[in-house]
This record gives sequence, structure tokens and C-alpha cells, in this order.
Amino acid sequence: MPSTFGNLFRISTWGESHGGGVGVVIDGCPPNIEISAEEIQIDLDRRRPGQSDIVTPRKESDTCEILSGVFEGKTLGTPIAILVRNKDQRPSSYTEMKDKYRPSHADYTYDAKYGHRAWHGGGRASARETIGRVAAAAVAKKVLAKIAPDMEILAWVDSIKDIKADVNPNTVTSEMIESNIVRTADADAVEPMIQLIKDVRAEGNSVGGVVECVVKNAPVGLGDPVFDKLDAILAQAMLSIPATKGFEVGSGFEGTQLTGAEHNDPFFMEEDRVRTASNRSGGIQGGISNGENILFRVAFKPTATIMSEQQTVSTSKEDTELKGRGRHDACVLPRAVPIVEAMTVLTLCDMALHQRAIILD
Amino acid sequence: MPSTFGNLFRISTWGESHGGGVGVVIDGCPPNIEISAEEIQIDLDRRRPGQSDIVTPRKESDTCEILSGVFEGKTLGTPIAILVRNKDQRPSSYTEMKDKYRPSHADYTYDAKYGHRAWHGGGRASARETIGRVAAAAVAKKVLAKIAPDMEILAWVDSIKDIKADVNPNTVTSEMIESNIVRTADADAVEPMIQLIKDVRAEGNSVGGVVECVVKNAPVGLGDPVFDKLDAILAQAMLSIPATKGFEVGSGFEGTQLTGAEHNDPFFMEEDRVRTASNRSGGIQGGISNGENILFRVAFKPTATIMSEQQTVSTSKEDTELKGRGRHDACVLPRAVPIVEAMTVLTLCDMALHQRAIILD
Amino acid sequence: MPSTFGNLFRISTWGESHGGGVGVVIDGCPPNIEISAEEIQIDLDRRRPGQSDIVTPRKESDTCEILSGVFEGKTLGTPIAILVRNKDQRPSSYTEMKDKYRPSHADYTYDAKYGHRAWHGGGRASARETIGRVAAAAVAKKVLAKIAPDMEILAWVDSIKDIKADVNPNTVTSEMIESNIVRTADADAVEPMIQLIKDVRAEGNSVGGVVECVVKNAPVGLGDPVFDKLDAILAQAMLSIPATKGFEVGSGFEGTQLTGAEHNDPFFMEEDRVRTASNRSGGIQGGISNGENILFRVAFKPTATIMSEQQTVSTSKEDTELKGRGRHDACVLPRAVPIVEAMTVLTLCDMALHQRAIILD
Amino acid sequence: MPSTFGNLFRISTWGESHGGGVGVVIDGCPPNIEISAEEIQIDLDRRRPGQSDIVTPRKESDTCEILSGVFEGKTLGTPIAILVRNKDQRPSSYTEMKDKYRPSHADYTYDAKYGHRAWHGGGRASARETIGRVAAAAVAKKVLAKIAPDMEILAWVDSIKDIKADVNPNTVTSEMIESNIVRTADADAVEPMIQLIKDVRAEGNSVGGVVECVVKNAPVGLGDPVFDKLDAILAQAMLSIPATKGFEVGSGFEGTQLTGAEHNDPFFMEEDRVRTASNRSGGIQGGISNGENILFRVAFKPTATIMSEQQTVSTSKEDTELKGRGRHDACVLPRAVPIVEAMTVLTLCDMALHQRAIILD
Repeated sequence: MPSTFGNLFRISTWGESHGGGVGVVIDGCPPNIEISAEEIQIDLDRRRPGQSDIVTPRKESDTCEILSGVFEGKTLGTPIAILVRNKDQRPSSYTEMKDKYRPSHADYTYDAKYGHRAWHGGGRASARETIGRVAAAAVAKKVLAKIAPDMEILAWVDSIKDIKADVNPNTVTSEMIESNIVRTADADAVEPMIQLIKDVRAEGNSVGGVVECVVKNAPVGLGDPVFDKLDAILAQAMLSIPATKGFEVGSGFEGTQLTGAEHNDPFFMEEDRVRTASNRSGGIQGGISNGENILFRVAFKPTATIMSEQQTVSTSKEDTELKGRGRHDACVLPRAVPIVEAMTVLTLCDMALHQRAIILD
Repeated sequence: MPSTFGNLFRISTWGESHGGGVGVVIDGCPPNIEISAEEIQIDLDRRRPGQSDIVTPRKESDTCEILSGVFEGKTLGTPIAILVRNKDQRPSSYTEMKDKYRPSHADYTYDAKYGHRAWHGGGRASARETIGRVAAAAVAKKVLAKIAPDMEILAWVDSIKDIKADVNPNTVTSEMIESNIVRTADADAVEPMIQLIKDVRAEGNSVGGVVECVVKNAPVGLGDPVFDKLDAILAQAMLSIPATKGFEVGSGFEGTQLTGAEHNDPFFMEEDRVRTASNRSGGIQGGISNGENILFRVAFKPTATIMSEQQTVSTSKEDTELKGRGRHDACVLPRAVPIVEAMTVLTLCDMALHQRAIILD
Repeated sequence: MPSTFGNLFRISTWGESHGGGVGVVIDGCPPNIEISAEEIQIDLDRRRPGQSDIVTPRKESDTCEILSGVFEGKTLGTPIAILVRNKDQRPSSYTEMKDKYRPSHADYTYDAKYGHRAWHGGGRASARETIGRVAAAAVAKKVLAKIAPDMEILAWVDSIKDIKADVNPNTVTSEMIESNIVRTADADAVEPMIQLIKDVRAEGNSVGGVVECVVKNAPVGLGDPVFDKLDAILAQAMLSIPATKGFEVGSGFEGTQLTGAEHNDPFFMEEDRVRTASNRSGGIQGGISNGENILFRVAFKPTATIMSEQQTVSTSKEDTELKGRGRHDACVLPRAVPIVEAMTVLTLCDMALHQRAIILD
Repeated sequence: MPSTFGNLFRISTWGESHGGGVGVVIDGCPPNIEISAEEIQIDLDRRRPGQSDIVTPRKESDTCEILSGVFEGKTLGTPIAILVRNKDQRPSSYTEMKDKYRPSHADYTYDAKYGHRAWHGGGRASARETIGRVAAAAVAKKVLAKIAPDMEILAWVDSIKDIKADVNPNTVTSEMIESNIVRTADADAVEPMIQLIKDVRAEGNSVGGVVECVVKNAPVGLGDPVFDKLDAILAQAMLSIPATKGFEVGSGFEGTQLTGAEHNDPFFMEEDRVRTASNRSGGIQGGISNGENILFRVAFKPTATIMSEQQTVSTSKEDTELKGRGRHDACVLPRAVPIVEAMTVLTLCDMALHQRAIILD
């Protein structure tokens, strides 16, 4: 369904960028999980606009309220509804959007699909929709902490345009990533990346890049053999994030340059644990986690909103021109990092619950 | 669910590589669609082993039987069950697999997940599972032909290892692709690709590559805004195919090297139709088709089964070595082409039906 | 899933009787449906406490807010979130419920299932949960009005305890039902029913009864042949309403007293329309609507909350006694009528959309 | 979806009464469950035609074949496909059905819905569709035996037309039920019931009745609070069985004749177990099992196929007459008993797996 993700830990996000608010309903969360609005807020603050001087200066506090499903600090097992009110609306910034389709946005396709569009903002295509995902993931994280306490999920900016970070996924830490506003984990790449973002913003232009993600200490056996392969659902999860254009796991597209003899991951025993000597599988074999680090990469296109004049068409179907306005991210990557983590958390939480259901011994 | 794909046109595949057979149940197919076992057989023959001298020489006729849901040559609207019996089983080829995990296969993860494995063959991880998908897609194709008669779905081999074909997605035809056993669409690349496959096979080695796919004349408005974005579901669909490691749509990973000003697709009017001057969006904006060619690429790793000695571990958890046996594809790409097409058909058919349901005017 | 109903027009209700509020998210509503908070409010007011002197005197205005999915008075095609804040909480009325299980309520089973319970109120088992259903149905009604403008859904109180109304489903009107606070459609039964409710309330006791529902001018062909038979989903929908104990369609349990020759509904032509001479099928044959009036009945048990001393056990698992407190309905039937209608609307809307998807001609 | 039941233990039945066969795919069965075709056959034989001289004399051995998902006598965790070939087809018996709608059958509604019908038999509306359910339930039973080894599910014929059996659900045993061909559990009712069936059959007429079912030693906590209440899903499951017209749980429709003070089930402690002194709740409170016997009743209408001349209409929409032919059950009740049990097993298995997933402690 359009706005529903997950089977057992199922979330339904709702809300447009402009309107009463945005939020999520979590249906299927186990009971007795300790959670508070404050904990959720910590994660929301990581994706919030205005958090540093390289992201959009929009001021939205994005304060969440838990409306149901939590009592005396613990989940009830019933649906958890979380609401974040919309604020700081400047519809005047958007009036031109009422009549013209912004290139490489979803304005035209929404109109073509539905014949009706919340034109004063990006509607559901807005990054604001991801608030519900991050809030739900804050809860899912607590569920996973009970099931797989050693599991750690870390995403970071691997590249912005042609600036590539040099990061070892086996040693990367949350501290390394959060130590800088661009959320990369290579100290040498931080300043060049920040400078690039500031430069393109000054030009009214934008840039994209790649986010990489590692899941350490994932349980063996998550994921299902056919359509719900762990990497297939991660691919869906990542491509559901606005502005994404690609997903690769383990050796990815580069892996096609190797022969099988070079590419295969030999097994060996490390004490009583089955390990692989290399990890071109990216921690997933046959769609199921094998206990090695789960590794994948997600491509984000350059932000579609730019300040230069662009050729486009009007809603009355005439050629015209449009110049971007409003306050936007010249590069979404720093704020995309917590969203990539959130979708990974949601995917793994759903699969971990499924695994509990079917393994009887 | 593990073996179910689609919401309205929902398929459930079943079957192991060895056992009574493989097949599919299609639940939700519209009535009055003309279909026959012969038509389905045509598509199955395109993915069949033994069809040329660069694919596995296994001889399996893969003859399908329609067990239900079709009467007097037309669908009834009730579930369509399709069965393909397994044949040509040589369990002796597999006895070593009972005790040792093949590197970069799903043997270990199946055992770790389920504690029980159909060891004489690849189980559900076998390419044989895809028979059900191709059979279901043969039916879905007939449904789509009624809803969107001009739509055409074409996939081809874009690269094998470092041999890259030069193909224009706007002019590629089915004839170009089917004119050669490697299923590429660049006449100059055919012989080098065939030679490469024969060479690595002679060495007991394997290669991978990239399949590209274009959907021409897709209706505008397919796909949903959030989790069921058209590209998100295509990503899941593609990563659910065995041996895939990556998916990119439109500009993909390369697109991250451009600025927004370079990357955006300007709109213009072509008579009364909204078009884009470039197509870095890959025909999808905000998760919804915009009427341009839908374009995406899928990475396939080199086949995991190779004939050289490899380090591995036994099911009793001791270090050991394993040498591949049996008859396998040294390169899955030629046979992957119809499977990529099939998953694309299934995705679009489900979304086209959904669009019919919700647009009331 | 626990709190989700419907496939294409899918609703997720959330909220406990006490807490931030209750509400619903509708995922899959067609775009361009005119709807307003005021229209939804009309339906909510029909199920509201305090609307007459035979229902609970709790004062809750139950004012709804549309948070998303509606723009310029029309649905967007995106999720519609509706919120009703909780008010008038008197947790002091419930303190005893913290430590003792109310007989024939869900207190014990919630504790047994989840190990954690929102004890100051009925949690999700509260009739308050049905607010989300009624709000969603107000939207679904507008969708159905576009698809099947002549369809009319009417429920009424058929009996309260041993007082049985004499109502002809073929001639019953909305005006007849809404003309009296008990919502029956037999003028002669109104006063006896009201008196009975007042009498049992005065005794601190309670009564149940039967609600009957007719769907007039339903399209032919709704419902699916096997598990999603129209009557099967109606049965689930009705039994999901708190306090229900039974469902029967057409001839129901009484029909078992007839022979086949007496029970069968002969077909005949009425101009160019296929009709049945009798309607023991209740408008549904083989799970699919046949164009006759859809007719079913739902049994509601006497309200579990009574004011007399009852034997029960404490949460610390000791025998004890409990006397009901708080403000409750001595008879839920009058307020159940709009809820039965709401669940019928939701069922038919989902099926009508499904039928649109699969019939291509 | 039309032919799919369950979320975690999900079955998809397929097949028409005439055609290649009927069957089921089980998706989501836990691994390592011991099962064989022979065990499944035992349950299939209980619903088979021709098993006694009061059921249809059609001779169908209904021999099942497990096509996938079972290896070395144990489930693999992958989809289990089960096939039963159709035999003993006498299409000549059905030629009149091609042109005339049988009263109170699904012939007309199938045509009206789909515009195409498998006229030589009842299509999906045939009792033959239930073969897949019974086969799947044979597997589910083995799953439940691991999770809740003491649970016992027993159904029996409670009444046929006006002959009512006197059965105590607390003491009824499988032996009592299987000791007689009518499958009631009241020795005094057996002969009258058999005689009634033989009498109406001799007249070319038919009768219906009520099946009652008890689940003993069900785990506490099964079922979900809102739409997936245990009794709501049981209601759907039962109304999905052909020829059913009603469902009631616990006190059911009769319970509306009591006051709350008479109806409530007082709690008391029996050693360390919470019990209820009466069981008008039918073992379910707030949609969740409370550990008492789960008790419900299902109404089956008299068989629609009768041998007398009936008024009907032709497919060309003209008034006509039809006389039943073929070999049919004059009373479906004895064969309905195992189907009621099967749907109960499938419901409880799905819910028991769900409970495993969400309770983490």
C-alpha cells in the first residue's frame, strides 16, 4: 500500500509538508518497550532543518507528541500514533508552484496521477514526510535492542559529488560520524565537502552524493528466500526515500568487474562461528543475513530545487520558465543519513519479529 | 510474505530445484484475458537451460500445465495455478553439498535460518524458482496489453564483466535483442561477450554483468508517492532475482557527479503532451511514471558456482575445501534478461490495476 | 493486522479511551472526493455519548480535525489522518480497575496477552476506538456515492432483550430510524424499548439486543468467491465491533429449519434485470452480491459494566469483588447503529474499489 | 485477497471443481515440522465424498501430492504446494448449467461479476475448493501441536433441521463424534438425523443445520484487540465456508435475552489460574482468548441442489425452469465438520505465530 511499510512492525506515515501536521501510526509494536517522546525527539532532531549552516535554514522545531499506544513509559502493544505539527509555513514562497511544474520534482506526476495536488509545498514528496519514518524507527530501535542488543546501524556520507570519503566500515563509529555537520566519517573529507556545499549554494545550485550504511552484529538468518530477501526489502526501503536513484549491496555494480573466483567469499571457522574471509556478499547470501557486516550504498541525486531559471511547463500546459524560491537544502546528504538509518532499522525490526514467529525451537 | 509479490495481481511462487516441481499461483488476475499454456511456454523457453551453447547444458524442457483459473481459453478471475514438473535430477552431483557450504551461495544462510535445507540442489535459491515468475508474467503481459496496449518492456545485456555494449534505449528493439544468444543489443559486442563466457567457462570460472531495461509508452501516473514508489518496487523486484547486487534508475550512481542545474530534466510541451528534454529521472518522478521511457539497470554478480577448489566449512563446522560440480551457467546474464522483464511486467501490472481502482473519473 | 481493515481503502485506527486522543489513518482513498470535517462530524455526532437520555451521560464533544490528505475541500489521494482529542477524563473513576479485572471486559485478556494495560479506561476495547471507524466511513460514504450513487445503507435496532421491533427492510427509511432516540424503525416498539433501558439502568443492570442492516441498490458483483466473500468480510467487520456475539445473513440460523425446496430463492426476470422471488440468500450468493437487498443481523450482548457487586479476581491473582463505577451505556444498541453502518460502508467501499481494478471491460 | 487466508501462516487455495485439480500453497510455515502426504490424506478422507451412505456418492479418492516445501519428512520453511487431481468428471451432468442459473447457487453472481464462468461444475463455489483448506490445516495442526500441545479442536453436528443434539462441549470427545457417520456427539440423535437425511434425499430435497465447535486448552492471549479479534477472524473463516449463513460465539443470539447481571462471567482463581465461573464469553473477551473453552456455532443452509423443478432464468435472460441433476449431498453437515475444524486450526495457527512474534519476554 502506498503509505504503509512492514508486515509485523507496520508503519503508516501520513501528512503533507503544509497542512495540520505529519506523523505515523505504528501497528504491531511489541508491548513493554520503554519509549518516550524525548527519545524520539533526539532522532527527529538529527533530521531537522536548520540544525547546521549547510542545511536548509527553515526553522521547524518538529516537536513530536505520542498520542496513543504508550502508557506509563512503556508500549502497550496497541497502535502508537505520533504527531508533529507543521509550522513556519510561508505559502507565499510557493504561489508560483501552483501554476508551474518544478523540473525533476513530483509536481507534474502528482497532477497527472491524481488530478489534484497540494501545491503549496511538496505534498507527500516533501522530505517532511520522512519525519514519520524517523519517529517510528526510534521505537523500532528499542525493539531491536531487546532482540539483538549488540546490533549497531551506522550510516554516513560516503561521497558528495566527486569528493569521496575514505571510511572503513569495520571501524567506523557513531562518534566519527556525528563529530561533523556533514556526517561523513573521514576527517580529511569534512572541510572539502562543507566547502563544496557552501559553494554550490552560493551559486543557487545543488549537489548529490552517496550514503553508505553498515549493520554490525546483525543476527544470522534475517530475511526471506524470495521476494522479501533482506537486500530486496532494503532496496525498496532506500528507493522509497526522496531523491534516491540507486542501491547496491556488498560488491554492487563494481562486483561485475570480477570473476567468480575473485568474487566468492570463502568460508572459514572462527572459533565456533562461521565467517567469510571477504565480504563481497555484503553480509547477505540468498537474501538472508550471514552474520558478517551488512553493507550497502544509496545514491542521492542533486537537489531538484535550484535558484536559476529553468525551462518548464505550466499547469495549463504551456511552455514557460521557473526560478526556484524558498529555503532548501543545496545538498540533502547530511540530513539523509538518519533517514537511511531509520529505514534500515524498520526493515530489520520487521524481519527480526518475523524470524521470531516462524522458528519454533 | 516470503514468496508472495504484488497486491492486486498477487503471485505466490513455490518449489525447490529438486522435488515434485515448481510453479506459481496468481491470485487477482482479471477475468476474460485470453491465455494458453502455449503462450506461457514461449516465455518459459526464453529462460530455459540448454537453449544455447553459452548457458548451462542442463536439459529441462520446463513444460508448463495450467491447473486452474483458465476455462475455454480465457481467465476466470479465479486463481491461476501453473505447474512445471522437475526432471533430469542428478542428486549424485550434489552429495558433497549435503556436507559443505558452497561459498557465496545460500547454503549456509538457509541452514542458519531454518535448521533444515533441501541440500540436493539450491532449494528456493535456485534460478529454477524464477520459472513461476516468468509464467505469471506471461499472464500479466496479456493484462497489460488490454490496459496499456502500446507499452513495451525490453531488457538486454548491457555489459558482461568489462565488455560494455553500446545501446540506445530509445531505439532498441526486441529483434535486436533476440537476434543473438547473449541477448545484448549491440551487434559489435555479441562476439566478444560470447567469447568471454566461453573462455571463463573453459577455466571453470564465471562472470557477471549488468542488464538494462526500458519501458516504452508506460502510462503516466503509475506508482505511489511513498513506500510503493514505482522505482522502489522495481528495486525490490530486481533485488529479489538471484545473484543481483545493485539497482539504479535513470542517472543512477553516475548522476551524483552532476550538479542540480546539470541534472534536472526541463519540461516542455510536445503538442499537448508534457515531455522532458532529458531523462535523468528515468521516467519516474516522485515515484510516479511521467510518460518518458522508464529506464533502469541491474547488476548481477559472477555466478557463485565455479569449478576450482575453494576454502569453505562443513555443516559440522570444520574448515574444509570444496570444488564445484554439476552443470551451471558460467554467466547468468543471457537467461536473466527474461527474468528482469518478467519482474518489470509483474510490477507494472499490479500498479496499473491499482491505478484503475483509485481513479474514479 | 490488529488495527488495520481493508485492502484498497485501508484504515488504521489508533487510540485508547484515555490518552492524547483517538483517530484513524485512511490509506488508499481515491482523490477528488469532496469531504470536510463538518461532514465527518455529523456522523461522529450520531455515535457520540450524551446525545440522548438513554445513553451514557459522558460529555465528549468528539470534535474531529483532518490533519492531512484533504486540500481545498477535496481528497488528495494521499493518507487522510483524522484526530479526535480525548476529554472529560475522570481517572479517579477507574482506580479500582487498576487492581481488579472487570468481569466480561477485556481487562484480564489484555493483561494476559501484553503484560501491560492502560488501566484507566478500556484501552482499545473501549467503544471510543470506534470513532476512527465512523470518521473513516464518512469518507468512504462519499467514495461510494460516486461509484454507486443509488446505494443506501441503513441499520436499526431490531430488538432489545425480548422486545422485538416489526420492521420491513424493504420499506425502512432513514427518517424512521432517526425519528427516535433508540434508533428502531417500529414506532410501537420505541417507548417499550426506552422504558426497558431506563428500567435496567435504574437497577444498575444492562441489556443487549440485535441490530439489523439492509443495503439497498448495491451493485451486482461485489465480494470475492472464497475467503473474502462479501458475507465473510461483513461477519469479520461486525464481530470486530465491541460487545458483538453473533452475525447472520439472509435466512441465518432460522434458515436451518427449512428444506432446500423451501429455502431456495427462485430467479425470475423483471424487465431486463435478474431478480429473486424471495431473498433468503440475503442478497449474497457464493459470497457475491446479486443485486437484491443485502440483509444481515448482529447480536450485541448486554453491556458488561453493571453497578452491582460482582465476583472477580485481582491483578495480583486473588479472589475479590468489584462494583461497577463510571458513566456507561446501560444498552449500547442505539449508539451501535451508526457503527454497524460504518463497518458496512468500509467493507463495501473496499470491495467496490477492488471490483473496479479487476474488471477491464 | 480473494483466495488468500492468514498473515503469517498464509494459505492460497486454487482450483475449480472441474479442471486440472485443486490445491493450496502454504507460505510462511515454520521449518522442521514433521509432515507427510499420508497424514494429510487422513484429514482429506474425512471430507471426501462417498465416505458413507448419507453423503454424495461421487467417487473421488482425492489423493494428495506434496509438490514442494517438505524434504526428508520435514517442512523446509519454504512454500508447501499440495495438489489433488480432479477425477470422475461427468460434464454431461452439467450441460444444462451452462444455459441456466441454478437457484441459490453462485452461477448468476459469478457471471454477473466476471462475465465468464466455469459452467461445468460449481467453479470455486464448489465444496471441492475446501480440499486445499483441509490439506493446509493438516499442516497447521502439526505446527500448533508444537506451540500448544494440549490444545484440542473438536467440531460436531449440533442440529440438522429441527433435530437438535444434546452435547456437552466440556466432555465431548473425538471418539464420540467419529463413532457415527453423521458426526454428531449425541448417540440418541444419530439415527433420527440419518433417517432425516435419507428421507429428504429420497424426496430429492435437502436439509441444513448447525455445526458447533469447541477449542479446549487454547493458550491465553490469542487474537488481537480490534479488527483481528479472534472471534472476528473466526467469523470470517466460518462464513467463507460454502453454504454458511450465520456465526455466533459463546452466548450468541440467545445471549441478548439476558441482562448484564445474568450474562457476565465472574472471575475466580483456580489454584494459580484465572478462570470464569460461567462461559457466556465463549472463551474470548475483547477479541482475545481467556483460557476457557472457545465455543462457537455455525449455521449451514439446506443444500441448494435439489431434484425438483424450480423456477429460474437462463443465461440469455429469459424465464425458464430447471431440475437439479448430478450427485450431491442432501445434507452437507457431516462433511462440513472437518472443514469447520480446518478453518479453526488455520485461524489459531496464524494467531499463535503472531503472538510469538510480538511477545519478547
